[in-house]
Amino acid sequence: MTAVVQRDGTRDEVAVEEPLEIRVDGAALTVTMRTPGHDEELALGFLYGEGLIDGPRAAGPSDDLAANVVDVKGPLLRDPGARRFYTTSSCGVCGKGSLEEVAVHAPMLAAGPRVARALLAALPDRLRQPAFGRTGGMHATGLFSARGEALLVREDVGRHNAMDKVIGRALLDGRLPLGGHILCVSGRLSFELVQKAALAGAPILVGVGAPTSLAVALAADRGMTLAGFARGTSVNVYSGPERIAGS
Amino acid sequence: MTAVVQRDGTRDEVAVEEPLEIRVDGAALTVTMRTPGHDEELALGFLYGEGLIDGPRAAGPSDDLAANVVDVKGPLLRDPGARRFYTTSSCGVCGKGSLEEVAVHAPMLAAGPRVARALLAALPDRLRQPAFGRTGGMHATGLFSARGEALLVREDVGRHNAMDKVIGRALLDGRLPLGGHILCVSGRLSFELVQKAALAGAPILVGVGAPTSLAVALAADRGMTLAGFARGTSVNVYSGPERIAGS
Repeated sequence: MTAVVQRDGTRDEVAVEEPLEIRVDGAALTVTMRTPGHDEELALGFLYGEGLIDGPRAAGPSDDLAANVVDVKGPLLRDPGARRFYTTSSCGVCGKGSLEEVAVHAPMLAAGPRVARALLAALPDRLRQPAFGRTGGMHATGLFSARGEALLVREDVGRHNAMDKVIGRALLDGRLPLGGHILCVSGRLSFELVQKAALAGAPILVGVGAPTSLAVALAADRGMTLAGFARGTSVNVYSGPERIAGS
Repeated sequence: MTAVVQRDGTRDEVAVEEPLEIRVDGAALTVTMRTPGHDEELALGFLYGEGLIDGPRAAGPSDDLAANVVDVKGPLLRDPGARRFYTTSSCGVCGKGSLEEVAVHAPMLAAGPRVARALLAALPDRLRQPAFGRTGGMHATGLFSARGEALLVREDVGRHNAMDKVIGRALLDGRLPLGGHILCVSGRLSFELVQKAALAGAPILVGVGAPTSLAVALAADRGMTLAGFARGTSVNVYSGPERIAGS
Protein backbone atom coordinates (compact mmCIF):
# COMPACT_ATOMS: atom_id res chain seq x y z
CA MET A 1 0.00 0.00 0.00
CA THR A 2 1.52 3.27 -1.10
CA ALA A 3 0.67 6.95 -0.90
CA VAL A 4 1.56 9.83 -3.17
CA VAL A 5 3.50 12.72 -1.66
CA GLN A 6 5.01 15.88 -3.05
CA ARG A 7 8.77 16.13 -3.20
CA ASP A 8 11.04 18.46 -5.08
CA GLY A 9 8.07 19.85 -6.97
CA THR A 10 7.02 16.47 -8.31
CA ARG A 11 4.91 13.54 -7.13
CA ASP A 12 6.45 10.49 -5.51
CA GLU A 13 5.18 7.24 -4.04
CA VAL A 14 6.00 6.26 -0.47
CA ALA A 15 5.06 3.28 1.69
CA VAL A 16 2.07 3.91 3.92
CA GLU A 17 2.77 3.73 7.65
CA GLU A 18 -0.08 3.97 10.16
CA PRO A 19 -0.58 2.78 13.72
CA LEU A 20 -2.71 -0.30 14.34
CA GLU A 21 -4.19 -1.05 17.72
CA ILE A 22 -4.63 -4.75 18.40
CA ARG A 23 -7.45 -5.52 20.81
CA VAL A 24 -8.59 -8.79 22.33
CA ASP A 25 -12.29 -8.92 23.15
CA GLY A 26 -12.35 -5.14 22.94
CA ALA A 27 -9.45 -4.49 25.29
CA ALA A 28 -6.34 -2.77 23.88
CA LEU A 29 -3.30 -5.03 23.93
CA THR A 30 -0.71 -3.36 21.72
CA VAL A 31 -0.02 -0.73 19.08
CA THR A 32 2.17 -1.36 16.07
CA MET A 33 3.23 0.91 13.21
CA ARG A 34 2.36 -1.00 10.07
CA THR A 35 1.33 -0.75 6.43
CA PRO A 36 -2.47 -1.16 6.32
CA GLY A 37 -3.74 -4.39 4.83
CA HIS A 38 -3.94 -7.95 6.13
CA ASP A 39 -4.49 -6.51 9.59
CA GLU A 40 -6.24 -9.63 10.88
CA GLU A 41 -3.33 -11.79 9.74
CA LEU A 42 -0.93 -9.38 11.42
CA ALA A 43 -2.84 -9.55 14.69
CA LEU A 44 -3.10 -13.34 14.66
CA GLY A 45 0.53 -13.79 13.68
CA PHE A 46 1.61 -11.46 16.45
CA LEU A 47 -0.46 -13.28 19.07
CA TYR A 48 0.83 -16.65 17.86
CA GLY A 49 4.41 -15.42 18.13
CA GLU A 50 3.75 -14.35 21.70
CA GLY A 51 2.40 -17.77 22.60
CA LEU A 52 -1.01 -16.26 23.31
CA ILE A 53 -2.97 -18.32 20.77
CA ASP A 54 -2.30 -21.69 19.16
CA GLY A 55 -5.05 -21.75 16.57
CA PRO A 56 -7.17 -19.45 14.42
CA ARG A 57 -9.36 -16.82 16.06
CA ALA A 58 -12.07 -14.62 14.61
CA ALA A 59 -10.70 -11.14 14.02
CA GLY A 60 -11.89 -8.01 12.29
CA PRO A 61 -11.90 -4.23 12.28
CA SER A 62 -13.80 -2.24 14.85
CA ASP A 63 -17.13 -0.68 13.91
CA ASP A 64 -15.29 2.48 12.90
CA LEU A 65 -13.44 1.15 9.87
CA ALA A 66 -11.19 4.22 9.79
CA ALA A 67 -10.02 3.69 13.35
CA ASN A 68 -7.00 1.51 12.61
CA VAL A 69 -8.16 -1.05 15.14
CA VAL A 70 -8.38 -4.82 14.80
CA ASP A 71 -10.27 -6.78 17.41
CA VAL A 72 -9.48 -10.47 18.02
CA LYS A 73 -11.93 -12.79 19.72
CA GLY A 74 -10.49 -14.44 22.81
CA PRO A 75 -9.86 -16.14 25.03
CA LEU A 76 -6.07 -16.14 25.05
CA LEU A 77 -4.10 -19.17 26.16
CA ARG A 78 -2.74 -17.26 29.12
CA ASP A 79 -3.16 -13.94 30.82
CA PRO A 80 -0.80 -11.47 29.17
CA GLY A 81 -0.45 -10.04 32.65
CA ALA A 82 -1.27 -6.82 34.33
CA ARG A 83 1.01 -4.99 31.96
CA ARG A 84 0.07 -4.44 28.34
CA PHE A 85 1.93 -5.65 25.33
CA TYR A 86 3.55 -3.27 22.92
CA THR A 87 4.87 -4.06 19.53
CA THR A 88 6.29 -2.13 16.63
CA SER A 89 7.11 -2.12 12.99
CA SER A 90 10.33 -4.00 13.58
CA CYS A 91 10.28 -5.42 17.03
CA GLY A 92 9.58 -8.67 18.75
CA VAL A 93 10.67 -8.08 22.30
CA CYS A 94 8.19 -5.36 23.08
CA GLY A 95 5.99 -6.25 25.95
CA LYS A 96 8.72 -7.97 27.85
CA GLY A 97 9.32 -6.09 31.05
CA SER A 98 12.40 -7.90 32.18
CA LEU A 99 15.24 -9.77 30.61
CA GLU A 100 14.03 -13.19 31.68
CA GLU A 101 10.92 -12.68 29.64
CA VAL A 102 12.66 -11.83 26.40
CA ALA A 103 13.06 -15.40 25.25
CA VAL A 104 9.63 -16.84 24.56
CA HIS A 105 9.82 -20.60 24.65
CA ALA A 106 10.29 -22.08 21.21
CA PRO A 107 10.43 -25.83 20.57
CA MET A 108 13.34 -27.70 19.04
CA LEU A 109 12.70 -27.72 15.33
CA ALA A 110 11.84 -30.76 13.24
CA ALA A 111 14.43 -32.27 10.93
CA GLY A 112 12.70 -30.62 8.01
CA PRO A 113 13.73 -30.65 4.38
CA ARG A 114 17.18 -30.68 2.85
CA VAL A 115 17.62 -27.99 0.22
CA ALA A 116 20.28 -27.07 -2.29
CA ARG A 117 22.45 -24.09 -1.45
CA ALA A 118 21.73 -22.60 -4.88
CA LEU A 119 18.00 -22.75 -4.24
CA LEU A 120 18.38 -20.91 -0.94
CA ALA A 121 20.54 -18.22 -2.53
CA ALA A 122 17.94 -17.55 -5.20
CA LEU A 123 14.86 -17.27 -2.95
CA PRO A 124 15.00 -13.49 -2.35
CA ASP A 125 14.62 -12.92 -6.08
CA ARG A 126 11.29 -14.70 -5.83
CA LEU A 127 9.97 -12.52 -3.02
CA ARG A 128 8.62 -10.14 -5.66
CA GLN A 129 8.07 -6.83 -3.90
CA PRO A 130 5.93 -4.68 -6.13
CA ALA A 131 5.59 -1.86 -3.58
CA PHE A 132 9.29 -1.91 -2.77
CA GLY A 133 10.07 -1.29 -6.39
CA ARG A 134 7.99 1.88 -6.31
CA THR A 135 8.83 3.16 -2.83
CA GLY A 136 12.10 1.56 -1.73
CA GLY A 137 10.54 1.36 1.69
CA MET A 138 8.91 -2.03 2.08
CA HIS A 139 10.08 -5.21 3.72
CA ALA A 140 8.81 -8.60 2.65
CA THR A 141 8.56 -12.09 4.10
CA GLY A 142 7.87 -15.12 1.94
CA LEU A 143 6.78 -18.63 2.76
CA PHE A 144 8.34 -21.12 0.34
CA SER A 145 8.00 -24.83 -0.22
CA ALA A 146 11.10 -27.00 0.07
CA ARG A 147 11.24 -26.88 -3.72
CA GLY A 148 11.40 -23.09 -3.67
CA GLU A 149 7.84 -22.30 -4.72
CA ALA A 150 6.53 -19.02 -3.27
CA LEU A 151 3.37 -19.95 -1.38
CA LEU A 152 2.70 -16.64 0.32
CA VAL A 153 4.36 -13.21 0.36
CA ARG A 154 3.51 -10.24 2.55
CA GLU A 155 4.94 -6.72 2.55
CA ASP A 156 5.08 -4.10 5.29
CA VAL A 157 7.11 -1.09 6.37
CA GLY A 158 8.03 -3.24 9.37
CA ARG A 159 9.93 -6.43 8.80
CA HIS A 160 8.41 -8.08 11.87
CA ASN A 161 4.95 -7.16 10.67
CA ALA A 162 5.63 -8.80 7.31
CA MET A 163 6.55 -12.03 9.09
CA ASP A 164 3.58 -11.77 11.46
CA LYS A 165 1.28 -11.42 8.45
CA VAL A 166 2.72 -14.54 6.83
CA ILE A 167 2.46 -16.55 10.03
CA GLY A 168 -1.07 -15.28 10.67
CA ARG A 169 -2.14 -16.31 7.17
CA ALA A 170 -0.46 -19.70 7.58
CA LEU A 171 -2.31 -20.12 10.86
CA LEU A 172 -5.65 -19.39 9.19
CA ASP A 173 -4.78 -21.81 6.39
CA GLY A 174 -3.90 -24.61 8.79
CA ARG A 175 -0.27 -24.69 7.68
CA LEU A 176 1.35 -24.41 11.13
CA PRO A 177 3.79 -25.67 12.21
CA LEU A 178 5.86 -24.92 9.10
CA GLY A 179 7.99 -28.06 9.40
CA GLY A 180 8.42 -28.61 5.69
CA HIS A 181 8.85 -25.00 4.63
CA ILE A 182 11.36 -22.19 4.24
CA LEU A 183 10.86 -18.61 5.43
CA CYS A 184 12.68 -15.88 3.51
CA VAL A 185 12.99 -12.23 4.56
CA SER A 186 14.10 -9.20 2.59
CA GLY A 187 16.25 -7.67 5.31
CA ARG A 188 18.52 -8.44 8.20
CA LEU A 189 18.14 -11.33 10.60
CA SER A 190 17.54 -10.26 14.19
CA PHE A 191 16.86 -12.27 17.32
CA GLU A 192 13.17 -11.47 17.11
CA LEU A 193 12.76 -12.76 13.57
CA VAL A 194 14.49 -16.01 14.45
CA GLN A 195 12.21 -16.36 17.46
CA LYS A 196 9.06 -15.78 15.44
CA ALA A 197 10.20 -18.28 12.80
CA ALA A 198 11.10 -20.84 15.46
CA LEU A 199 7.73 -20.51 17.17
CA ALA A 200 6.07 -21.09 13.80
CA GLY A 201 8.14 -24.25 13.43
CA ALA A 202 10.12 -23.14 10.37
CA PRO A 203 13.32 -25.21 10.15
CA ILE A 204 15.01 -22.88 7.63
CA LEU A 205 15.19 -19.07 7.68
CA VAL A 206 17.08 -17.18 5.02
CA GLY A 207 17.54 -13.44 4.60
CA VAL A 208 19.06 -10.91 2.26
CA GLY A 209 20.87 -9.15 5.09
CA ALA A 210 23.26 -9.88 7.93
CA PRO A 211 22.41 -11.85 11.06
CA THR A 212 23.11 -10.57 14.56
CA SER A 213 25.06 -12.50 17.17
CA LEU A 214 21.92 -13.35 19.13
CA ALA A 215 20.08 -14.48 16.00
CA VAL A 216 22.86 -16.97 15.26
CA ALA A 217 22.93 -18.15 18.87
CA LEU A 218 19.17 -18.70 19.08
CA ALA A 219 19.02 -20.47 15.71
CA ALA A 220 21.84 -22.81 16.71
CA ASP A 221 20.18 -23.48 20.08
CA ARG A 222 16.83 -24.43 18.53
CA GLY A 223 18.27 -26.42 15.63
CA MET A 224 17.30 -23.94 12.93
CA THR A 225 19.16 -23.47 9.66
CA LEU A 226 19.95 -19.75 9.50
CA ALA A 227 21.33 -18.28 6.28
CA GLY A 228 22.10 -14.66 5.42
CA PHE A 229 23.40 -12.47 2.62
CA ALA A 230 21.40 -14.45 0.06
CA ARG A 231 22.25 -12.63 -3.14
CA GLY A 232 21.11 -14.65 -6.11
CA THR A 233 24.04 -16.96 -6.45
CA SER A 234 25.67 -16.98 -3.02
CA VAL A 235 24.46 -17.37 0.55
CA ASN A 236 26.16 -17.70 3.95
CA VAL A 237 25.02 -20.48 6.29
CA TYR A 238 25.41 -19.69 10.01
CA SER A 239 23.72 -22.67 11.64
CA GLY A 240 22.08 -25.97 10.75
CA PRO A 241 24.28 -26.81 7.73
CA GLU A 242 22.96 -30.39 7.77
CA ARG A 243 19.90 -29.19 5.85
CA ILE A 244 22.04 -27.74 3.06
CA ALA A 245 22.96 -29.89 0.08
CA GLY A 246 25.71 -28.91 -2.31
CA SER A 247 28.67 -26.58 -1.87
CA MET B 1 30.81 -4.09 18.63
CA THR B 2 31.11 -7.32 16.71
CA ALA B 3 31.36 -11.02 17.52
CA VAL B 4 32.98 -13.85 15.63
CA VAL B 5 30.76 -16.76 14.58
CA GLN B 6 31.32 -19.89 12.57
CA ARG B 7 29.74 -20.11 9.16
CA ASP B 8 30.36 -22.40 6.23
CA GLY B 9 33.42 -23.78 7.98
CA THR B 10 35.05 -20.39 8.33
CA ARG B 11 34.95 -17.49 10.77
CA ASP B 12 32.80 -14.44 10.20
CA GLU B 13 32.04 -11.23 12.05
CA VAL B 14 28.49 -10.29 13.01
CA ALA B 15 26.98 -7.35 14.88
CA VAL B 16 26.42 -8.05 18.55
CA GLU B 17 22.78 -7.92 19.67
CA GLU B 18 21.89 -8.22 23.35
CA PRO B 19 18.95 -7.09 25.47
CA LEU B 20 19.37 -4.03 27.68
CA GLU B 21 17.05 -3.35 30.58
CA ILE B 22 16.63 0.35 31.33
CA ARG B 23 15.80 1.06 34.96
CA VAL B 24 14.96 4.29 36.73
CA ASP B 25 15.96 4.38 40.40
CA GLY B 26 16.20 0.60 40.28
CA ALA B 27 12.76 -0.05 38.79
CA ALA B 28 12.59 -1.72 35.36
CA LEU B 29 11.10 0.57 32.72
CA THR B 30 11.87 -1.04 29.37
CA VAL B 31 13.91 -3.63 27.50
CA THR B 32 15.57 -2.96 24.16
CA MET B 33 17.63 -5.18 21.88
CA ARG B 34 20.81 -3.24 21.23
CA THR B 35 24.50 -3.44 20.45
CA PRO B 36 26.35 -3.06 23.76
CA GLY B 37 28.26 0.18 24.26
CA HIS B 38 27.16 3.72 25.09
CA ASP B 39 24.36 2.23 27.16
CA GLU B 40 24.01 5.31 29.34
CA GLU B 41 23.65 7.51 26.27
CA LEU B 42 21.06 5.10 24.89
CA ALA B 43 19.05 5.22 28.10
CA LEU B 44 19.17 9.01 28.37
CA GLY B 45 18.35 9.51 24.71
CA PHE B 46 15.41 7.15 25.00
CA LEU B 47 14.04 8.92 28.08
CA TYR B 48 14.49 12.31 26.42
CA GLY B 49 12.60 11.11 23.35
CA GLU B 50 9.75 9.98 25.58
CA GLY B 51 9.56 13.38 27.24
CA LEU B 52 10.54 11.82 30.57
CA ILE B 53 13.68 13.90 31.17
CA ASP B 54 14.76 17.30 29.86
CA GLY B 55 18.33 17.37 31.11
CA PRO B 56 21.23 15.07 31.95
CA ARG B 57 20.82 12.41 34.61
CA ALA B 58 23.36 10.19 36.31
CA ALA B 59 23.28 6.73 34.77
CA GLY B 60 25.39 3.62 34.99
CA PRO B 61 25.43 -0.16 34.92
CA SER B 62 24.06 -2.20 37.77
CA ASP B 63 26.45 -3.79 40.25
CA ASP B 64 26.49 -6.90 38.12
CA LEU B 65 28.29 -5.53 35.10
CA ALA B 66 27.35 -8.57 33.01
CA ALA B 67 23.66 -8.08 33.64
CA ASN B 68 22.90 -5.85 30.66
CA VAL B 69 21.18 -3.35 32.88
CA VAL B 70 21.55 0.44 32.98
CA ASP B 71 20.11 2.35 35.90
CA VAL B 72 19.17 6.02 35.54
CA LYS B 73 18.79 8.30 38.54
CA GLY B 74 15.37 9.94 38.73
CA PRO B 75 13.12 11.62 39.22
CA LEU B 76 11.34 11.64 35.86
CA LEU B 77 9.42 14.67 34.67
CA ARG B 78 6.20 12.75 34.82
CA ASP B 79 4.90 9.39 35.93
CA PRO B 80 5.29 6.96 33.06
CA GLY B 81 2.05 5.52 34.36
CA ALA B 82 0.98 2.26 35.79
CA ARG B 83 2.05 0.51 32.65
CA ARG B 84 5.68 0.02 31.80
CA PHE B 85 7.45 1.31 28.75
CA TYR B 86 8.84 -1.03 26.16
CA THR B 87 11.25 -0.18 23.43
CA THR B 88 13.13 -2.06 20.79
CA SER B 89 15.94 -2.02 18.32
CA SER B 90 13.89 -0.11 15.79
CA CYS B 91 10.86 1.27 17.43
CA GLY B 92 9.65 4.45 18.94
CA VAL B 93 6.01 3.84 19.58
CA CYS B 94 6.51 1.08 22.11
CA GLY B 95 5.01 1.92 25.41
CA LYS B 96 2.01 3.62 23.91
CA GLY B 97 -1.06 1.70 24.84
CA SER B 98 -3.52 3.50 22.65
CA LEU B 99 -3.46 5.42 19.42
CA GLU B 100 -3.89 8.82 21.02
CA GLU B 101 -0.64 8.30 22.85
CA VAL B 102 1.44 7.50 19.80
CA ALA B 103 2.27 11.11 18.97
CA VAL B 104 4.47 12.50 21.70
CA HIS B 105 4.26 16.26 21.64
CA ALA B 106 7.09 17.79 19.67
CA PRO B 107 7.56 21.55 19.29
CA MET B 108 7.56 23.44 16.01
CA LEU B 109 11.15 23.51 14.87
CA ALA B 110 13.37 26.57 14.71
CA ALA B 111 14.19 28.12 11.35
CA GLY B 112 17.61 26.51 11.52
CA PRO B 113 20.33 26.58 8.93
CA ARG B 114 20.09 26.64 5.17
CA VAL B 115 22.24 24.00 3.51
CA ALA B 116 23.25 23.16 -0.02
CA ARG B 117 21.52 20.19 -1.59
CA ALA B 118 24.89 18.73 -2.57
CA LEU B 119 26.07 18.83 1.05
CA LEU B 120 22.97 16.95 2.21
CA ALA B 121 23.39 14.32 -0.49
CA ALA B 122 26.98 13.66 0.58
CA LEU B 123 26.42 13.31 4.34
CA PRO B 124 25.85 9.54 4.44
CA ASP B 125 29.34 9.01 3.04
CA ARG B 126 30.63 10.75 6.14
CA LEU B 127 28.79 8.52 8.56
CA ARG B 128 31.77 6.15 8.50
CA GLN B 129 30.46 2.84 9.75
CA PRO B 130 33.44 0.70 10.57
CA ALA B 131 31.38 -2.14 12.03
CA PHE B 132 28.93 -2.08 9.14
CA GLY B 133 31.80 -2.62 6.76
CA ARG B 134 32.70 -5.81 8.57
CA THR B 135 29.25 -7.15 9.42
CA GLY B 136 26.74 -5.54 7.07
CA GLY B 137 24.44 -5.41 10.05
CA MET B 138 24.82 -2.04 11.73
CA HIS B 139 22.81 1.14 11.51
CA ALA B 140 24.33 4.54 12.19
CA THR B 141 23.14 7.99 13.12
CA GLY B 142 25.35 11.04 12.77
CA LEU B 143 25.09 14.54 14.16
CA PHE B 144 26.49 17.05 11.70
CA SER B 145 27.13 20.77 11.79
CA ALA B 146 25.41 22.95 9.21
CA ARG B 147 28.69 22.90 7.31
CA GLY B 148 28.61 19.11 7.15
CA GLU B 149 31.19 18.30 9.82
CA ALA B 150 30.54 15.01 11.60
CA LEU B 151 30.33 15.87 15.29
CA LEU B 152 29.15 12.54 16.63
CA VAL B 153 28.38 9.13 15.13
CA ARG B 154 26.86 6.11 16.86
CA GLU B 155 26.23 2.60 15.53
CA ASP B 156 23.76 -0.04 16.64
CA VAL B 157 21.88 -3.05 15.29
CA GLY B 158 18.78 -0.93 15.89
CA ARG B 159 18.38 2.28 14.02
CA HIS B 160 16.36 3.88 16.80
CA ASN B 161 19.03 2.95 19.29
CA ALA B 162 21.68 4.64 17.16
CA MET B 163 19.65 7.84 17.22
CA ASP B 164 18.93 7.53 20.94
CA LYS B 165 22.66 7.20 21.58
CA VAL B 166 23.41 10.35 19.58
CA ILE B 167 20.68 12.31 21.35
CA GLY B 168 21.75 11.01 24.75
CA ARG B 169 25.33 12.07 24.09
CA ALA B 170 24.17 15.47 22.84
CA LEU B 171 22.11 15.84 26.00
CA LEU B 172 25.15 15.10 28.18
CA ASP B 173 27.21 17.57 26.15
CA GLY B 174 24.65 20.35 26.53
CA ARG B 175 23.95 20.45 22.80
CA LEU B 176 20.14 20.15 22.95
CA PRO B 177 18.05 21.42 21.28
CA LEU B 178 19.85 20.73 18.02
CA GLY B 179 18.56 23.87 16.30
CA GLY B 180 21.66 24.48 14.20
CA HIS B 181 22.43 20.89 13.30
CA ILE B 182 21.62 18.11 10.85
CA LEU B 183 20.82 14.50 11.78
CA CYS B 184 21.70 11.82 9.26
CA VAL B 185 20.67 8.16 9.41
CA SER B 186 21.91 5.16 7.47
CA GLY B 187 18.52 3.63 6.82
CA ARG B 188 14.91 4.36 6.14
CA LEU B 189 12.93 7.23 7.63
CA SER B 190 10.05 6.10 9.80
CA PHE B 191 7.57 8.07 11.88
CA GLU B 192 9.46 7.25 15.04
CA LEU B 193 12.80 8.57 13.80
CA VAL B 194 11.18 11.83 12.71
CA GLN B 195 9.57 12.11 16.13
CA LYS B 196 12.84 11.53 17.98
CA ALA B 197 14.62 14.07 15.79
CA ALA B 198 11.83 16.61 16.25
CA LEU B 199 11.87 16.24 20.03
CA ALA B 200 15.62 16.84 19.96
CA GLY B 201 14.97 20.01 17.99
CA ALA B 202 16.77 18.98 14.80
CA PRO B 203 15.46 21.07 11.87
CA ILE B 204 16.92 18.79 9.20
CA LEU B 205 16.83 14.97 9.01
CA VAL B 206 18.32 13.14 6.06
CA GLY B 207 18.51 9.40 5.41
CA VAL B 208 19.90 6.92 2.94
CA GLY B 209 16.57 5.15 2.62
CA ALA B 210 12.94 5.85 1.83
CA PRO B 211 10.54 7.77 4.06
CA THR B 212 7.13 6.46 5.04
CA SER B 213 3.90 8.37 4.55
CA LEU B 214 3.62 9.18 8.24
CA ALA B 215 7.23 10.31 8.45
CA VAL B 216 6.58 12.84 5.68
CA ALA B 217 3.35 13.99 7.30
CA LEU B 218 4.88 14.50 10.75
CA ALA B 219 7.93 16.31 9.34
CA ALA B 220 5.72 18.67 7.34
CA ASP B 221 3.51 19.27 10.37
CA ARG B 222 6.42 20.21 12.63
CA GLY B 223 8.31 22.25 10.04
CA MET B 224 11.17 19.80 9.64
CA THR B 225 13.20 19.39 6.47
CA LEU B 226 13.00 15.68 5.63
CA ALA B 227 15.23 14.25 2.90
CA GLY B 228 15.66 10.65 1.76
CA PHE B 229 17.56 8.52 -0.72
CA ALA B 230 20.73 10.52 -0.09
CA ARG B 231 23.17 8.74 -2.36
CA GLY B 232 26.33 10.79 -2.68
CA THR B 233 25.25 13.14 -5.43
CA SER B 234 21.46 13.12 -5.28
CA VAL B 235 18.86 13.45 -2.55
CA ASN B 236 15.05 13.74 -2.47
CA VAL B 237 13.49 16.48 -0.33
CA TYR B 238 10.02 15.66 1.01
CA SER B 239 9.34 18.59 3.31
CA GLY B 240 10.86 21.89 4.39
CA PRO B 241 12.52 22.79 1.05
CA GLU B 242 13.05 26.35 2.31
CA ARG B 243 16.19 25.15 4.10
CA ILE B 244 17.70 23.75 0.90
CA ALA B 245 19.89 25.94 -1.27
CA GLY B 246 20.71 25.05 -4.84
CA SER B 247 18.95 22.71 -7.23
